Amino acid sequence: MVGVSSLDPAIAERLKRDAQGLVTAVIQDAESRDVLMVGWMDDEALHRTLTTGRGTFWSRSRQTYWVKGETSGNTQAVREVRLDCDGDTLLVLVDQTGPACHTGTRTCFDADRLL
Amino acid sequence: MVGVSSLDPAIAERLKRDAQGLVTAVIQDAESRDVLMVGWMDDEALHRTLTTGRGTFWSRSRQTYWVKGETSGNTQAVREVRLDCDGDTLLVLVDQTGPACHTGTRTCFDADRLL
Repeated sequence: MVGVSSLDPAIAERLKRDAQGLVTAVIQDAESRDVLMVGWMDDEALHRTLTTGRGTFWSRSRQTYWVKGETSGNTQAVREVRLDCDGDTLLVLVDQTGPACHTGTRTCFDADRLL
Repeated sequence: MVGVSSLDPAIAERLKRDAQGLVTAVIQDAESRDVLMVGWMDDEALHRTLTTGRGTFWSRSRQTYWVKGETSGNTQAVREVRLDCDGDTLLVLVDQTGPACHTGTRTCFDADRLL
């Protein structure tokens, strides 16, 4: 994780990060309104998401940034980003190309229904 | 957080919990398809959500369980619960009564648009 980010300080001061410096990012399809996936963003990932219009995340397992679709081609064009009342969760509305899940399903929630 | 939960072991073994024993729970309105809020569940909160049909969470700040609407009356009747491909996030579809946000707005994402 990069210590210094170019994120707008007016936004950075509203974030309530967890112990790893991250906020939760819920990704929703702007058209179908399906919840596609949940990822994690630090200040720099949010900065890149806002300025490039591509969903950009911090991988907790690989400890690196990743851009959705950069290897699969299943990109996310960002339409809208909202911060929640607590400042610890983002809602990102996207135009999703192809399946959003790395398993090949449309969303990450398609395979396992508990109720 | 209660150490022993009554959660179905077949479900419990599929959960990938964080260091605090929690999974992320994205709450979506089953009708409007709006993402309403994000909360946190340990095994027992998930067990209670599945068996009572009421959205039940673990409060990280207050270190206690809470049932959505138990003080405000703005309850969540649970229709569907799905686990994501990683096992660390739940998608909960609900019939929301009244505003979902404690600030009185319909969702927790209504007030602060970043993009």
